[in-house]
Amino acid sequence: MVVVMEEMAKEDQIQHVISKLIDMSFDVHRSTGVNQTVLGAIGDKRGLDTGILELLPGVHKVVRITEAFKLASRTFHPQDTVIKIRNVTIGGDDLVMMAGPCSVEAQNQISEIAQMVRTAGATVLRGGAFKPRTSPYSFQGLGEDGLTYLREAANKHDMVCVSEVMESSQIPLLTEYVDVLQVGARNMQNFSLLRELGKIRKPVLLKRGMAATIEEMLMAAEYIMAGGNYDVILCERGIRTFENYTRNTLDISAIPVVKKLSHLPIIADPSHATGRRDKVPPMARAAIAAGADGLIVEVHQDPEKALSDGAQSLYPEQFEHLMGELRIIAKAVSKKW
Amino acid sequence: MVVVMEEMAKEDQIQHVISKLIDMSFDVHRSTGVNQTVLGAIGDKRGLDTGILELLPGVHKVVRITEAFKLASRTFHPQDTVIKIRNVTIGGDDLVMMAGPCSVEAQNQISEIAQMVRTAGATVLRGGAFKPRTSPYSFQGLGEDGLTYLREAANKHDMVCVSEVMESSQIPLLTEYVDVLQVGARNMQNFSLLRELGKIRKPVLLKRGMAATIEEMLMAAEYIMAGGNYDVILCERGIRTFENYTRNTLDISAIPVVKKLSHLPIIADPSHATGRRDKVPPMARAAIAAGADGLIVEVHQDPEKALSDGAQSLYPEQFEHLMGELRIIAKAVSKKW
Amino acid sequence: MVVVMEEMAKEDQIQHVISKLIDMSFDVHRSTGVNQTVLGAIGDKRGLDTGILELLPGVHKVVRITEAFKLASRTFHPQDTVIKIRNVTIGGDDLVMMAGPCSVEAQNQISEIAQMVRTAGATVLRGGAFKPRTSPYSFQGLGEDGLTYLREAANKHDMVCVSEVMESSQIPLLTEYVDVLQVGARNMQNFSLLRELGKIRKPVLLKRGMAATIEEMLMAAEYIMAGGNYDVILCERGIRTFENYTRNTLDISAIPVVKKLSHLPIIADPSHATGRRDKVPPMARAAIAAGADGLIVEVHQDPEKALSDGAQSLYPEQFEHLMGELRIIAKAVSKKW
Amino acid sequence: MVVVMEEMAKEDQIQHVISKLIDMSFDVHRSTGVNQTVLGAIGDKRGLDTGILELLPGVHKVVRITEAFKLASRTFHPQDTVIKIRNVTIGGDDLVMMAGPCSVEAQNQISEIAQMVRTAGATVLRGGAFKPRTSPYSFQGLGEDGLTYLREAANKHDMVCVSEVMESSQIPLLTEYVDVLQVGARNMQNFSLLRELGKIRKPVLLKRGMAATIEEMLMAAEYIMAGGNYDVILCERGIRTFENYTRNTLDISAIPVVKKLSHLPIIADPSHATGRRDKVPPMARAAIAAGADGLIVEVHQDPEKALSDGAQSLYPEQFEHLMGELRIIAKAVSKKW
Repeated sequence: MVVVMEEMAKEDQIQHVISKLIDMSFDVHRSTGVNQTVLGAIGDKRGLDTGILELLPGVHKVVRITEAFKLASRTFHPQDTVIKIRNVTIGGDDLVMMAGPCSVEAQNQISEIAQMVRTAGATVLRGGAFKPRTSPYSFQGLGEDGLTYLREAANKHDMVCVSEVMESSQIPLLTEYVDVLQVGARNMQNFSLLRELGKIRKPVLLKRGMAATIEEMLMAAEYIMAGGNYDVILCERGIRTFENYTRNTLDISAIPVVKKLSHLPIIADPSHATGRRDKVPPMARAAIAAGADGLIVEVHQDPEKALSDGAQSLYPEQFEHLMGELRIIAKAVSKKW
Repeated sequence: MVVVMEEMAKEDQIQHVISKLIDMSFDVHRSTGVNQTVLGAIGDKRGLDTGILELLPGVHKVVRITEAFKLASRTFHPQDTVIKIRNVTIGGDDLVMMAGPCSVEAQNQISEIAQMVRTAGATVLRGGAFKPRTSPYSFQGLGEDGLTYLREAANKHDMVCVSEVMESSQIPLLTEYVDVLQVGARNMQNFSLLRELGKIRKPVLLKRGMAATIEEMLMAAEYIMAGGNYDVILCERGIRTFENYTRNTLDISAIPVVKKLSHLPIIADPSHATGRRDKVPPMARAAIAAGADGLIVEVHQDPEKALSDGAQSLYPEQFEHLMGELRIIAKAVSKKW
Repeated sequence: MVVVMEEMAKEDQIQHVISKLIDMSFDVHRSTGVNQTVLGAIGDKRGLDTGILELLPGVHKVVRITEAFKLASRTFHPQDTVIKIRNVTIGGDDLVMMAGPCSVEAQNQISEIAQMVRTAGATVLRGGAFKPRTSPYSFQGLGEDGLTYLREAANKHDMVCVSEVMESSQIPLLTEYVDVLQVGARNMQNFSLLRELGKIRKPVLLKRGMAATIEEMLMAAEYIMAGGNYDVILCERGIRTFENYTRNTLDISAIPVVKKLSHLPIIADPSHATGRRDKVPPMARAAIAAGADGLIVEVHQDPEKALSDGAQSLYPEQFEHLMGELRIIAKAVSKKW
Repeated sequence: MVVVMEEMAKEDQIQHVISKLIDMSFDVHRSTGVNQTVLGAIGDKRGLDTGILELLPGVHKVVRITEAFKLASRTFHPQDTVIKIRNVTIGGDDLVMMAGPCSVEAQNQISEIAQMVRTAGATVLRGGAFKPRTSPYSFQGLGEDGLTYLREAANKHDMVCVSEVMESSQIPLLTEYVDVLQVGARNMQNFSLLRELGKIRKPVLLKRGMAATIEEMLMAAEYIMAGGNYDVILCERGIRTFENYTRNTLDISAIPVVKKLSHLPIIADPSHATGRRDKVPPMARAAIAAGADGLIVEVHQDPEKALSDGAQSLYPEQFEHLMGELRIIAKAVSKKW
């Protein structure tokens, strides 16, 4: 940590900061310049609240020098994490396509979609059984029945499946049915849930909160990893900005940033980011072109009748066409699938 | 709902939209202008996803005309909700001052602070026992011991107390110890938790998520109220913006906006919004001047040694001085306490 | 325009709004529903301030039904605008690559870079002569000398050139030297400048302000077009959000949105958006994959010594490599160059 | 400046950074810790682009230690700047109330309003003659006639007056008629204009851009001051955020932040921030409670007929009532007027 003193800081203010740092078990190096004094504090304190130092008299600013996350950091784990679930590979040079309806609505609905997206190139089937809805008056999902149908459809079409877990108490149920547990954007900082997910041994798909910084997303991954579950797949799904023509703003630049900071795989969700079907293919192409390890896309055989998120669900033929475009782009970024 | 067609929309597109609306059980009124056709859809569908209509060919935009929330709306409940907990009144013409440390750290710590803030004018004691921390390596709270100390301190100093609930499974425990259950900003859209809080009969202090719109905050209140628990206290605690000199940007204008849209009381949290002690008093004064029903403020007898959030905790004498300033401002807004 | 009355609006409030609308020369259609009244106001008033109506007693909300822009709208001009400048085509099925240093620094510097980027595939040479700098103490550009060197370099290497105009008084000078005049992000709503640019007959490259909505960008284009200059090239260059790992957030989704709303070409500037060289190639690829009509990229033969923006300038060999990747992606989006 | 190396940085990377810093004429102090090396670079380089250093191999981050602004900084000028214009005092312990219509519309309109606001307590008359409008089809102001009427009204009612300057060429005209020249939010980073305003000797009212950080606002003030014009009045007028119930979000916390960083006076504009008349009084009260040195408020004798911004203009009786509330709040913050 580096503590920069104000240009006019007095000697007793500097001494007070030094003794505080020593109280906190830091070693202190002092540089006295013509205009300003800078204190280097050496010691490993990842959980420290630097705010207290910032408010000491005479302090201009405090700068953390170690990253707040460690297990998720590429510094200590330079190779890409590659997650294998049966015949599906996530991370490294592979692209993974996850697709399916927003909600599992019925046994034949999910099975039909599974077949369509599998044929087009998806290997992971998505489908919600417990739905976080902004309105208490909206459809809330089929619950365990939904999970049963999802599992059956995945098995039938030789796919892996993923579904959202909304709270800790649902973890045992989800673990029984699905291969990957998804944490929704609104739960990215539900620390109780993250901690419990650290105890299981199935991959977690962690969606970025719509107001979360990239560093906070990596800290959320760190929560899961700190419990011993290292198989975390990150997912950029749009951040909230002043622009509201699209529902959220898909932060494509987060993809290369995460690739540099972390070894974890990162995919993109163009469906939730844009909220509009016609914007999904361009944003899907952009994410892959920027280096994402895959996509999670909503597809529905009859979007106008979908019980949730119909407006952002692709028609199966649109999904198939998109897969064709992505096969070309994959070559430009040396990815295969 | 109003569906505005594009200026160039064709007749068959208009007919398709009309038949869709009728399928959805709306009555439809059509206005054909020189340039554009507008369709009025009459019917009460609060949970409807309007996105599907927006993507139909020829549609320019779709405008909801009913508010998405109902129980929280002032339209159907013009008088202010006033919540009474023993000798404390929240809402209406009364101001309520909630104060205390970020975390309960020890029995004597919380008791000492209780005495100080009670003397200065606070009637509700705050203190966290379960702490949502960005880093898994930071102090996570004392748990049930913390609640015990909090309750004792509140009783001893004739105060009401509030503490944060992080997940549904903690509700019974919290209910046993505290008078008001707080939902933190990161959990504002934890719908499972909100639904469970709708089933209890204790007031809930609902903090605005840092990326939540005012309407989403009211929808979150609606979740709790839909379960039959009408005692919801809203709390503005800062939103995330591009400005990062302060931790978040306290959206003071949300206070008069909420006052117009809803009958629920709204207080402000200047401590978490700014993250810096020296900015707390000006923002506290601003919130009261804008019409807030009260404040929740962090106070600590020795902030430099606090186990969490020390940088934003006021010294007791600062809190006392602030209370004096607020007594003047209260007159300007016709509030008493 | 549609005026939605509150659910509890009284008849005299409704009558007051109707008479206001008639005063404003609108024809009014009234729909009275069980819960709510909706008024349709027919008439073409693009410059109207709807705020006045919103504040009338009993009004719930006012919804514009016509777009605020007209000349820039695809509704009235369905075919893409294609701009031809000698052998360079911008818009339609063509991709255009604009490249060069942030600032023109010396005669041989700009000539060397021109040759390098021309060989790699760029046909438009960029280079600033008047620099808008956040600090008054930073390098402010070479002025007219810079323009002379830019023009010479463009001619020598058979390129078209673009440079930024900072205020109306510079228009004659710029017009003499360059083929395309650039309006910087900070000037996107400098309406005096826009109006003057409407009077010239050279293409204008209009960069999106970092806090401008897509609609505001189209309104800024409308200002130029309203003066009779229809050759406007839009440029997405990043918006300001809470995320500050990258300098701004390149809003890739603005590209397909603009393509739908407007017939004007849109390119992307990955250099200013990210502010970091290593993030330029992924964002450049993403923009083309999303359907952009081209790019404007900063390239410098010795970025570590550049007088401005060195951190975001590509090395010539990075630019060349990027062009190779883009030739693959171009096929996926049916573009050629 | 402090350069923090990555935890895994190699010795030759560290040496390369050191030699770069020496090339840039910095003195370098090196601290080698167990995990990380930190380099302190001593020297005064306010205009330096630190980005180049950030991208050198092995660099983790670069931290500026000197503020980017100097003349505007309180560090070198601890006492408040107090500006006197005839009988009006801006800054220090005084509050200043600026009020008037958005646009000067006619001779008697501005004179009538002047009388009303003067009686209620305003001493500075505002009124636009050149209007920056988002739409080219909206009312653009009366030009020089407007300035004449504004000056006459101010003289008649013993007031000082302020009006907006939109470009450098208008400076001589504005200087002739008004006491304070206003720079609008959209021009806050129009550096050509700022530089020209540095050459005059009349106070400048500088509005914060809606996407400008506090530091950028102070840098814009620095541009004016660097030219020798030290009388800059800052104005917080709302920033753009995701919340769009109000037009912008008045960043009240910017007031105490500016008070700490700078000696310049800062006022608030609650009218443009909120865009809605009913939100102006609460936000005006909040700004004063937070420590602002005054307000600029739009008032119109018949807002429903105003040619611009009618929705946000107060009725004269509302303004008068607000002044009464502010006289109470002023006591709480030890201000007088």
